[in-house]
Amino acid sequence: MSTPTAVPPTGRPAAAGAVPSQGHAPSPADAPARLALRRARTLVEPALLDWVDRLPGELRRIARYHFGWNDAAGAPDQGLVGKVLRPALVLSAAEACGGRPEESLPPAVAVELVHNFSLLHDDILDGDTTRRHRATAWTVFGSPGALLTGDALLSHAFRVLADDGSPRAAAAVRALSDATTLLVEGEHTDVGFESREAVPLQACLAMSERKTAELMACSCELGAVWAGAAPERVAALRRFGHHLGLGFQIADDLLGIWGDPALTGKPAGADLAARKKSLPVAAALAADGAAARRLAALYRPVDPDGPPEGPERIAELAELVERAGGRGWAERAADEHADRAAAALAES
Amino acid sequence: MSTPTAVPPTGRPAAAGAVPSQGHAPSPADAPARLALRRARTLVEPALLDWVDRLPGELRRIARYHFGWNDAAGAPDQGLVGKVLRPALVLSAAEACGGRPEESLPPAVAVELVHNFSLLHDDILDGDTTRRHRATAWTVFGSPGALLTGDALLSHAFRVLADDGSPRAAAAVRALSDATTLLVEGEHTDVGFESREAVPLQACLAMSERKTAELMACSCELGAVWAGAAPERVAALRRFGHHLGLGFQIADDLLGIWGDPALTGKPAGADLAARKKSLPVAAALAADGAAARRLAALYRPVDPDGPPEGPERIAELAELVERAGGRGWAERAADEHADRAAAALAES
Repeated sequence: MSTPTAVPPTGRPAAAGAVPSQGHAPSPADAPARLALRRARTLVEPALLDWVDRLPGELRRIARYHFGWNDAAGAPDQGLVGKVLRPALVLSAAEACGGRPEESLPPAVAVELVHNFSLLHDDILDGDTTRRHRATAWTVFGSPGALLTGDALLSHAFRVLADDGSPRAAAAVRALSDATTLLVEGEHTDVGFESREAVPLQACLAMSERKTAELMACSCELGAVWAGAAPERVAALRRFGHHLGLGFQIADDLLGIWGDPALTGKPAGADLAARKKSLPVAAALAADGAAARRLAALYRPVDPDGPPEGPERIAELAELVERAGGRGWAERAADEHADRAAAALAES
Repeated sequence: MSTPTAVPPTGRPAAAGAVPSQGHAPSPADAPARLALRRARTLVEPALLDWVDRLPGELRRIARYHFGWNDAAGAPDQGLVGKVLRPALVLSAAEACGGRPEESLPPAVAVELVHNFSLLHDDILDGDTTRRHRATAWTVFGSPGALLTGDALLSHAFRVLADDGSPRAAAAVRALSDATTLLVEGEHTDVGFESREAVPLQACLAMSERKTAELMACSCELGAVWAGAAPERVAALRRFGHHLGLGFQIADDLLGIWGDPALTGKPAGADLAARKKSLPVAAALAADGAAARRLAALYRPVDPDGPPEGPERIAELAELVERAGGRGWAERAADEHADRAAAALAES
């Protein structure tokens, strides 16, 4: 078995290594993952830009802003701001199956287009004003522009897969479409959670499987499919991506509460301020005891017309989530999914 | 050359025959088009429902409502409410190229999914509350639900094309994606027009080419591609669909001003009330003379917080559009595109 370079030699996926309790500083064990991400960026950024530049008119301008190549006025900006995690998974999975990364660019570009379609729409639906340290596209260009640019990125993703006449195109289109539909359903479920007072932990996990893990699983699947891997190998890499994705989501949820704003690009405790039913919160609310009860009493929808909450209240919520066991649960769950991802990789 | 049955024997496309000045009652010349639509509905409705029912959870419920199979509570409703014009074009184009309609259902379903994705998003962006005599999906299920269901329909459309392993799938995905991207760009341009006081007629036409004609051209293209037609034949049928689509849009714009609400499903003069820069209005505003000047003076964005306009003002606007020559221009343009569509068909 050759090993995808997104995964450190220990077999432990990168996302779990990024769990906040283990510190924000890059650890030596992350090095292969960082290398894979850097290589993916080098390969994918020009191809992605080329495809974005095929969009017509104003949609191109909005997309260029969203990805980071342009500022709001259309002048050159810092360049691609995303982590290109999903393209890195495509390239690494393809390589693990004997494919060449340079020949796996169509699915790598396609998954990044779908990911960014979902970000554009999510930011509108969630009312988020900042992403990757920059104003979200809808705040700059208006909701219609951001919504329609998202639509165009989604449509474009399938165009990329079908562009070069690959015999794998139809299978790749099927896989990407199925993952996208589930991702969208996950987002719909997530939006519905915000107006509910209590959401069972299992429902939160099922939502995260769809909203996050599905596209990561699909990224691994597409790399393997594009390289012509046998079905059982495709399935094992898909499982790897699934558990990596769930671990990633749990780590992201931990960062949404305890992450450093300078690193996350989001305000401190943003998820708590928005009363998001993230996984650590759901786990805390599902617990018994005084901290869980107090958390439940405080974790009600915030009146948007009321006075803004102070940082003390956010800090109190974070402490209650921790005391009720939500942080510990999430750290253990992230580890467990990392182990399962490693096991799936060993089977591939 | 065999003739697509969406087109009457005179070679005059159906849409032009529906121009309001020629009356709303079905004319005998429309009969073949009505037959083609009825056949398309019979063939396409079960396939479309089957695909919609593969959507997960709440998205399925919203989509079923939007298409007309369910009411808002989820109980059976009247059934598919759309005209299935685009699927009829797919089936007729396929037949004209020697294909069997029954074997052309994937592209027929796909274009209807894309069309309805665009309706779901347009209704949110335009704030329209009624479509096909029913409350729009976003008014029933909220904007997030309608937006995400639109996303799922778009993603699903490509799934349908790639489902059965057809060797034409990749070419069809490319064509449908390109058309969808232009459609989305046309919608974006259209949204931008609403806040502009004057829009040149050519810009309006270019917008309609993208927003409406492109998907109709693509429908004809897909039917021909799926049937394995030669490239020049595909191109001719594409041109046919393009001119049919533009004629259709012009007819639709005429109905948006002078159409009978009982037939259009929209309030009388709805486009004028919303100050839409539809083609008859753009043509009138581009004219010289007192009526055009008076129209320009009145055709400013309506203050959403001001008192509602009375029917007299809407009637005055309609009369000004007609007196400035906008209605006559539109009727002539619809005829011209019908002739061009017929010419393209003769070349196919």
